[in-house]
Amino acid sequence: MKLVSYRDQVETQLGVLIEDQIISLRLLDEVYKDQTAIDVKIPSDMKQLIEQSEMILPYMEKLLQYYKEDGQKKLSKPVSDVEVLAPIAQPEKIICVGLNYLDHCKETGMEPPAFPMIFSKYANSIIGNHAAIEIPINSKQVDFEAELAVVMGKEAKCISAEEAEEFIFGYTIMNDVSARDLQFADGQWSRGKSADTFAPLGPAIVTKDEVGDPHQLDISLELNGTIMQESNTNNLIFDIPYIVAYLSQSMTLKPGDIIATGTPHGVGMGRDPQVWLKEGDLLTIKIERIGTLSNPVKKYVSEEKDLSKGHSLVEG
Amino acid sequence: MKLVSYRDQVETQLGVLIEDQIISLRLLDEVYKDQTAIDVKIPSDMKQLIEQSEMILPYMEKLLQYYKEDGQKKLSKPVSDVEVLAPIAQPEKIICVGLNYLDHCKETGMEPPAFPMIFSKYANSIIGNHAAIEIPINSKQVDFEAELAVVMGKEAKCISAEEAEEFIFGYTIMNDVSARDLQFADGQWSRGKSADTFAPLGPAIVTKDEVGDPHQLDISLELNGTIMQESNTNNLIFDIPYIVAYLSQSMTLKPGDIIATGTPHGVGMGRDPQVWLKEGDLLTIKIERIGTLSNPVKKYVSEEKDLSKGHSLVEG
Repeated sequence: MKLVSYRDQVETQLGVLIEDQIISLRLLDEVYKDQTAIDVKIPSDMKQLIEQSEMILPYMEKLLQYYKEDGQKKLSKPVSDVEVLAPIAQPEKIICVGLNYLDHCKETGMEPPAFPMIFSKYANSIIGNHAAIEIPINSKQVDFEAELAVVMGKEAKCISAEEAEEFIFGYTIMNDVSARDLQFADGQWSRGKSADTFAPLGPAIVTKDEVGDPHQLDISLELNGTIMQESNTNNLIFDIPYIVAYLSQSMTLKPGDIIATGTPHGVGMGRDPQVWLKEGDLLTIKIERIGTLSNPVKKYVSEEKDLSKGHSLVEG
Repeated sequence: MKLVSYRDQVETQLGVLIEDQIISLRLLDEVYKDQTAIDVKIPSDMKQLIEQSEMILPYMEKLLQYYKEDGQKKLSKPVSDVEVLAPIAQPEKIICVGLNYLDHCKETGMEPPAFPMIFSKYANSIIGNHAAIEIPINSKQVDFEAELAVVMGKEAKCISAEEAEEFIFGYTIMNDVSARDLQFADGQWSRGKSADTFAPLGPAIVTKDEVGDPHQLDISLELNGTIMQESNTNNLIFDIPYIVAYLSQSMTLKPGDIIATGTPHGVGMGRDPQVWLKEGDLLTIKIERIGTLSNPVKKYVSEEKDLSKGHSLVEG
């Protein structure tokens, strides 16, 4: 199933994406609830849906089956008629894995890391499909990174790689947008990775049963129609069960947590000349079986603020 | 005002701390609501309270005034009779500033940084006063860091240092617990800083009006009764308005966001011999006007999991 958060007029709701049509979960429930003879309260946001997925997903499948058999009612509308939001707005964690594609390591001449290289983004950076990536006022080197993202389904602590699959809910796409100047000036990457709008996510979460092996998916990124990144997730150095188990050794993974699995070669920073995002650019990430995530680029506009006042209590 | 989240029997609620007594906000509201002639719905969690603070704080002051004038009813109980929780369980961001005390820089022989060094923790690491810090199964070098933490009050984006004060709600204490072996093996600090229980927080949020100048507060940390860290926030290299304004240049700060302002000299890593936390230890942080945050240490117990399975899709 492809699950979407979206806004239709003013109402924010959950829906199922079938090709280019979206079906409201609330509407499906209203119309076919009685036929199912199951008493399920449908969730109001995706994190709730994931937490209750063992009950909700089979129920949704029943609703969809009745809807297909019915053939009378037209509950769907073109997805282009609604505003698709990020599938999850407030995950507790957005965990990123650096340097996880062999082709990216080869390209940069770096040794593949001995264990996953972990860094983080905050939820303020999340935006949905078609929303604009904003170049912050303090960066001149904003770059793109196409990534397959894991969506966690259940609390996981100290699990093994063999157990990991059952804790995963599904997969989506994340663009790990990065201000390289901030990222490398700081050494720690948090600030350069967490500007507002720096985590385009979606458009849908595809449940794991529809994805099959997540390590056999073509992944690409186009900038203004030109392919910049093109690889396959079979180039991952650390596979997904390993990453999930590895993280769970010290932190509890929660339903809705996002784990971005790293980016393949071809980012703007690694090119000669280097390529930085600018107002008017359009980025499109495609991952096989997952979907297409497309975001325009604009500049965030604000007057420069004087930061000198109040700076430094003591003379260094 | 000193604001606390706590659990009394099974109910989680908000309260006001007055010396060693806690008063339920719900109870205050029930008993004195009619006298105020104001129609305010009291919030159910601290983030909501902060979001509505311009209305709620004056209302709470009125309720407290009636309570004091009344002198009849005893609505308070000893804080030791309830379980104090972390004041905020799910901030969108826990932002940390590294190397921000001059005495710490001098001690380590490092140059004070030219701008704030930013890193992050996830909310899974938050625990309240008296809850146990757990040594994860994959670390042997867990360390402490006493820090004054800012609690944001309003959305802030691209603000100046001069404006910053009005966006702050109050202050609390955070122990920036750190697994040094994970932190430095990774280079990026996210994993070593974000193990479960690694962000003891509280016990109360003290509103800014009660704190006065946050750059004149004694701060200390005791390990099993021995003082390990002792300084004053007048040693901060980057003051709080500057840090808030600096962060807001690229990310929107939100009500309830936590900004930990750095730790003074004396952490376990910097000692000879080095000091690492072990089962049975007790850490107590005191910050003038803010309070005392005390947490025991224990080992998280789990069998070691085999992580070799599923690891590495490709030969490096």
